[in-house]
Amino acid sequence: MKILILNGPNLNTLGTREPGIYGTQTLGDLERLLTGKFPDDTFEFLQSNEEGTLVTRLNGLIEKPMDGVVMNPGALTHYSYALRDAVAMLTIPVVEVHISNIHAREAFREKSVIAAVCTGQISGFGINGYLLGVEAIKQQHYLKKST
Amino acid sequence: MKILILNGPNLNTLGTREPGIYGTQTLGDLERLLTGKFPDDTFEFLQSNEEGTLVTRLNGLIEKPMDGVVMNPGALTHYSYALRDAVAMLTIPVVEVHISNIHAREAFREKSVIAAVCTGQISGFGINGYLLGVEAIKQQHYLKKST
Amino acid sequence: MKILILNGPNLNTLGTREPGIYGTQTLGDLERLLTGKFPDDTFEFLQSNEEGTLVTRLNGLIEKPMDGVVMNPGALTHYSYALRDAVAMLTIPVVEVHISNIHAREAFREKSVIAAVCTGQISGFGINGYLLGVEAIKQQHYLKKST
Amino acid sequence: MKILILNGPNLNTLGTREPGIYGTQTLGDLERLLTGKFPDDTFEFLQSNEEGTLVTRLNGLIEKPMDGVVMNPGALTHYSYALRDAVAMLTIPVVEVHISNIHAREAFREKSVIAAVCTGQISGFGINGYLLGVEAIKQQHYLKKST
Amino acid sequence: MKILILNGPNLNTLGTREPGIYGTQTLGDLERLLTGKFPDDTFEFLQSNEEGTLVTRLNGLIEKPMDGVVMNPGALTHYSYALRDAVAMLTIPVVEVHISNIHAREAFREKSVIAAVCTGQISGFGINGYLLGVEAIKQQHYLKKST
Amino acid sequence: MKILILNGPNLNTLGTREPGIYGTQTLGDLERLLTGKFPDDTFEFLQSNEEGTLVTRLNGLIEKPMDGVVMNPGALTHYSYALRDAVAMLTIPVVEVHISNIHAREAFREKSVIAAVCTGQISGFGINGYLLGVEAIKQQHYLKKST
Amino acid sequence: MKILILNGPNLNTLGTREPGIYGTQTLGDLERLLTGKFPDDTFEFLQSNEEGTLVTRLNGLIEKPMDGVVMNPGALTHYSYALRDAVAMLTIPVVEVHISNIHAREAFREKSVIAAVCTGQISGFGINGYLLGVEAIKQQHYLKKST
Amino acid sequence: MKILILNGPNLNTLGTREPGIYGTQTLGDLERLLTGKFPDDTFEFLQSNEEGTLVTRLNGLIEKPMDGVVMNPGALTHYSYALRDAVAMLTIPVVEVHISNIHAREAFREKSVIAAVCTGQISGFGINGYLLGVEAIKQQHYLKKST
Amino acid sequence: MKILILNGPNLNTLGTREPGIYGTQTLGDLERLLTGKFPDDTFEFLQSNEEGTLVTRLNGLIEKPMDGVVMNPGALTHYSYALRDAVAMLTIPVVEVHISNIHAREAFREKSVIAAVCTGQISGFGINGYLLGVEAIKQQHYLKKST
Amino acid sequence: MKILILNGPNLNTLGTREPGIYGTQTLGDLERLLTGKFPDDTFEFLQSNEEGTLVTRLNGLIEKPMDGVVMNPGALTHYSYALRDAVAMLTIPVVEVHISNIHAREAFREKSVIAAVCTGQISGFGINGYLLGVEAIKQQHYLKKST
Amino acid sequence: MKILILNGPNLNTLGTREPGIYGTQTLGDLERLLTGKFPDDTFEFLQSNEEGTLVTRLNGLIEKPMDGVVMNPGALTHYSYALRDAVAMLTIPVVEVHISNIHAREAFREKSVIAAVCTGQISGFGINGYLLGVEAIKQQHYLKKST
Amino acid sequence: MKILILNGPNLNTLGTREPGIYGTQTLGDLERLLTGKFPDDTFEFLQSNEEGTLVTRLNGLIEKPMDGVVMNPGALTHYSYALRDAVAMLTIPVVEVHISNIHAREAFREKSVIAAVCTGQISGFGINGYLLGVEAIKQQHYLKKST
Repeated sequence: MKILILNGPNLNTLGTREPGIYGTQTLGDLERLLTGKFPDDTFEFLQSNEEGTLVTRLNGLIEKPMDGVVMNPGALTHYSYALRDAVAMLTIPVVEVHISNIHAREAFREKSVIAAVCTGQISGFGINGYLLGVEAIKQQHYLKKST
Repeated sequence: MKILILNGPNLNTLGTREPGIYGTQTLGDLERLLTGKFPDDTFEFLQSNEEGTLVTRLNGLIEKPMDGVVMNPGALTHYSYALRDAVAMLTIPVVEVHISNIHAREAFREKSVIAAVCTGQISGFGINGYLLGVEAIKQQHYLKKST
Repeated sequence: MKILILNGPNLNTLGTREPGIYGTQTLGDLERLLTGKFPDDTFEFLQSNEEGTLVTRLNGLIEKPMDGVVMNPGALTHYSYALRDAVAMLTIPVVEVHISNIHAREAFREKSVIAAVCTGQISGFGINGYLLGVEAIKQQHYLKKST
Repeated sequence: MKILILNGPNLNTLGTREPGIYGTQTLGDLERLLTGKFPDDTFEFLQSNEEGTLVTRLNGLIEKPMDGVVMNPGALTHYSYALRDAVAMLTIPVVEVHISNIHAREAFREKSVIAAVCTGQISGFGINGYLLGVEAIKQQHYLKKST
Repeated sequence: MKILILNGPNLNTLGTREPGIYGTQTLGDLERLLTGKFPDDTFEFLQSNEEGTLVTRLNGLIEKPMDGVVMNPGALTHYSYALRDAVAMLTIPVVEVHISNIHAREAFREKSVIAAVCTGQISGFGINGYLLGVEAIKQQHYLKKST
Repeated sequence: MKILILNGPNLNTLGTREPGIYGTQTLGDLERLLTGKFPDDTFEFLQSNEEGTLVTRLNGLIEKPMDGVVMNPGALTHYSYALRDAVAMLTIPVVEVHISNIHAREAFREKSVIAAVCTGQISGFGINGYLLGVEAIKQQHYLKKST
Repeated sequence: MKILILNGPNLNTLGTREPGIYGTQTLGDLERLLTGKFPDDTFEFLQSNEEGTLVTRLNGLIEKPMDGVVMNPGALTHYSYALRDAVAMLTIPVVEVHISNIHAREAFREKSVIAAVCTGQISGFGINGYLLGVEAIKQQHYLKKST
Repeated sequence: MKILILNGPNLNTLGTREPGIYGTQTLGDLERLLTGKFPDDTFEFLQSNEEGTLVTRLNGLIEKPMDGVVMNPGALTHYSYALRDAVAMLTIPVVEVHISNIHAREAFREKSVIAAVCTGQISGFGINGYLLGVEAIKQQHYLKKST
Repeated sequence: MKILILNGPNLNTLGTREPGIYGTQTLGDLERLLTGKFPDDTFEFLQSNEEGTLVTRLNGLIEKPMDGVVMNPGALTHYSYALRDAVAMLTIPVVEVHISNIHAREAFREKSVIAAVCTGQISGFGINGYLLGVEAIKQQHYLKKST
Repeated sequence: MKILILNGPNLNTLGTREPGIYGTQTLGDLERLLTGKFPDDTFEFLQSNEEGTLVTRLNGLIEKPMDGVVMNPGALTHYSYALRDAVAMLTIPVVEVHISNIHAREAFREKSVIAAVCTGQISGFGINGYLLGVEAIKQQHYLKKST
Repeated sequence: MKILILNGPNLNTLGTREPGIYGTQTLGDLERLLTGKFPDDTFEFLQSNEEGTLVTRLNGLIEKPMDGVVMNPGALTHYSYALRDAVAMLTIPVVEVHISNIHAREAFREKSVIAAVCTGQISGFGINGYLLGVEAIKQQHYLKKST
Repeated sequence: MKILILNGPNLNTLGTREPGIYGTQTLGDLERLLTGKFPDDTFEFLQSNEEGTLVTRLNGLIEKPMDGVVMNPGALTHYSYALRDAVAMLTIPVVEVHISNIHAREAFREKSVIAAVCTGQISGFGINGYLLGVEAIKQQHYLKKST
């Protein structure tokens, strides 16, 4: 399977950013974790602090779809209707992942403007959440993305 | 590992209830799915339409802890602060699972009064969500439950 | 016709509870009133203070449907999404009845979380409301339950 | 008995207006239905798209009361405090009827600014709701209008 | 001076309507009271249950202004932005009068959508409020209407 | 084409009303402007301060449809659910026009309770907005009215 | 008659404070205006920037009542529940006066936490409002203070 | 005196549950504390995780009243309108007790839907709150329950 | 023990103020009640209508602490963040007492801006509430004030 | 005339994105449509998924103004105060265009944070909305941009 | 320059009050700090727990203006519209200073009802904030106070 | 000291943008002002209209910290949780500066989603605010950034 792993603003600092909340593993560790755990699948990794770059990458999946997207939009989760629109027009599974439990932090983190157009949402399991996201795509690949 | 699979109100009707949303698999199918996929683990299955029964079962884990709980509180998700309190006093991982994508339905379904005291939340992946919940407990058993 | 008359918490006290609001007739009087008025129909009467008992009884109608339900959920009207879900999965007519005019009392009584998935709602006519509820089921039995 | 059947804005189009919601029967059918079902009672039928006309007719009942009013205020239900005041000063029973289930449609339809000063409210039973409204007035004519 | 006394919906019933709140004096009494108290001034009295009639009368003041308006919009106070617009385009003083203390009744009565474009507001003094309103116009005729 | 130009409360005062906001052109100027610009089309012009008159005219289009409606509901825009219902039952294009930019004035002017059931909304272009409205109907006459 | 004229915070600056809003007349002018206009009545004038001083003066009216109070609480209008309580326990008429039209300024000025327990409220007529307040007390001295 | 001590969901775990908040004393300790402190009074102790069980016990007091109720509804405090109704129909004193200071914790804990129909509320004094509750009943037994 | 009994605005009128709500006992009665019931303790009594006087007295406890404070802030309860700050910086127990049941009156009375930084809150037991407050301080003197 | 046509995030996918809502015409079609319809005018077309790129282009118009801007900010409409600021500092006409009727979709789409500083807003007419926008600029070029 | 340093309720306790938030320096230290840092300027220092005293001092600046005011209103910041009015009528610069970062504490601290009529606001820099406030007045003395 | 001066969207237009609000000085003037006033310090100046560019620059400070940041996020202040996260992970002082008084303009400008994780906030002093920001960093460099 071909899966896109998309990370939004500030996730480049993973491992150094507030390790009490986000752990000490880096994006590099995440890449090794995923490719190690799913050796038969192909991953494309993209992290960007730019909303537009993330939107453009998702737009590209219209012409050249992959088998699914595991996306951690970072803080854009809470206000980027542009990302929401970019997800809404895809027909492949898109899983929203959050490293921390967004329900157990500041009030603004609980609201995702994107989740409603994703297949599902996983939060609170550290970077293992990405593994669960990939697993979810593989298990239910036949399911339609929720509208 | 010993894991408690807790299901709340109306989940006894799984498979017959609005199959467009909840699928056609029953709680029996879920039991078979879990025990088939994780043959080395022990599961206790409990479904109840009674809030008090669920609270009491969770209370029992204080004296006799298990390795984790995968819980779908059904509609109690949205108002049962009693269930929240029962989860909050546990120190083992508790994963909240929802079959449908709660962000893509009626507004009241988006708010969980329980998620803030769980380890994490998984929604939108059909009954596969329970598999992911068990997986999450196994992978990160060493992690502390979020407060 | 076979009709289920479901009464929720505190309705067992009918006749003694705040008679200025709820009148002096008891649940026994209601049973006599209904069977007297509709001698050719069969009624099942169930009152419970337990949300779960009411949910379970409604679940039973999936396998063994009746011709309709007249339900006064009592105070559960205002928060029991579990009852809502139990009604939503039925395809027979369900009428929500309130003895008092819920629009003319405390603000919280005006909101029903269940009415949206019932066929209709009748409030303000004392225990005559149950008669009107049965009448409604009989008259429009062919109508589909609103979604 | 003498009963006033009052219909507000757009109800003149009954039968042609969104039949999926409001059915195919017209106001003429309603008149025939009521006089057929209650041959011993006298009905006055008034439909108007003008709030003021409805208010003025209700004002007339102060000097020359009838035995009750069955009123479908149409969309005025949601904002006409003038109609509310006109109902509040009557002492005969006034029943608010809605053809569709106002709890199962747009959010604004759920709020009635008038219901609090009516005897009761009936919604969701198609034009049969008017029959139930008349029935309600006959059954409980002795009851005081709620304040 | 020439002053327009404008009364909105249901004020035709003054004297019979909820006398505990509105007193027992009628519109006729009000006319006699005003002309008796201010014999040198000319009054035009208009009561209507129709929002449009009130708007149209106010529109007429653009071409043929008078010295002021004392207006009790009745329940239209709380939602008629059309009346507000009709007042806003006048340059003569307009006084909003309420018979009862609108701050001491139902919550919806406290909000006037019109007062912001009137010269001022007087409430709570029974029909004497109209006297005070005329007095206010006379005393400060030179003041500009608030914007 | 046959197009109905509907104007609501206070628009009869166009040209004299707050010219800083609404300009100095009158309804008569508007009629000349439209018939001059679109000589091959037929226009019916109706202005009323009465909500009911506007509703009744729209009701008339069910039996005798025209090719479209350009409607400026004036202040009724913000609360007349009766007008909304009258528009909702039409299948011809209805364009909501506002002379001023409703987003740049008082907060209450920003909310239209009618726009959701119109084809589209145009605001801020003075009386040229009516020209744009007619243009819009002509260009996309084949498009379905939004629901 | 003996009437207390109570002025709250910042009203000592009347005449110098934002004359565009509050005019150029001072508290001294107000005293002369009132005693000139009502030569047969006795006035007590009290202005204080201290909430407690105003409360204490009102408390004094329990033992030694006067014939009425005309009170401009200044900005305390919007938050002083202590003043509200002090008014609520009086049985003589209390009139709330505001110099400017509180509905035509900042949103916070529109809400009075005191008006609900006064006899009535007068706003928007400059310092003439005090004259109207005294007039109101004289005219309806027999009326009970609203609760 | 005969006093009912009612405890709601999760209070069975007292002493083990989050001792930083709820202390280390158990329900057994509470029983000993109360009977030791008030040796001349009779107590009935009931704890249940079931809302319905609590409602039913309170219903029983209609027929067989006691001298008062000290009730800690646990998390049901925040949503159980059924418990509220069960309290509202009693005429004996009912005291709502909370072990922790509900104003100093999560926002949802500050709102009690039951307190408005109790005699009074005591919170923040640990299990001593029950002692104070009994004391309150004894001291003011003659007082009427607030409505 | 040395305990400060602090009373806020309008409590000087106790016994005369709305006796239906606040009873007929005066502050003098309260003093006698407390010193009679707790003869071995020393009380300081302070009532003031001035927020600043209350704040200053509480500030004095930093240098010269007593064993506790029983405080009825009167209407300041609902808005005096200054009192809140003055309480928050103390480390001795502070009990907030209300004579009436603040949950059973106007909506604004239900919110205390101070309770969150007190040890606990007691409301609804008339002036006996002060006795319970003293009792509470004595019983749990060793407990830390909640933050 | 020289007019800038600005398109925001995801509008590059026009024609492929949810054609049921946005139609099947592409940005290329739009360019041909505009240049075909207005052969004497010059258009600059810019689409970007980057908020910053759009802001920068608008900034450029300060030094080198054009005759107007027709702008579809896409989802940025709902949160980009940066775009709002960039528009607010221009003095040429700026027209906000939306392809779909933003009042007939999700609630968040109804709010534009930009419209208040544009000349006007056009929504619901498909890509014809751009034609209307250009027309609007041409017709009223002399009008000042609303503030 | 002559500058007034105004401190509100509880700031007399500076240095002892919650030193983790407010530091250990006292008002005396602040005076020494300011006079040491700005030896050529004259300062008047006033701290009061009384809202009225602060208002009165500000009123005095109308007749005898100084060069600016640095004001920390303490908790009055959040509700004293009386202070707001007293600031609004001054034409000299007024700087609002907060010792702690009011955006990083309880929600109620974030809202200042006074800041809108000050020149500017400085928060979060400990007692150095007063230095910055004086600096701000000196640097921009020529700037007009914001309205 | 090494200090980063960060400016967000539209601040490149300083001097030309609404000079009534933002003054006539440009970013170039600001650079000269800062380097002139603090000749011994080193400044890095960065302005960008791109949220991502600002986030990335702040991320760079984790590895290579400077002595502080003075940041004017422009309109991103009101919605960029991504910037907030980027600030939150720094341990050096970050000062949020606004040129205008954000409390005296549109309501949306009053809310900063970033200030809670900055050291402090300065607004209303024109470009002098940057000077004050640098001063603040220098004075209290030893203080910890607020969390």
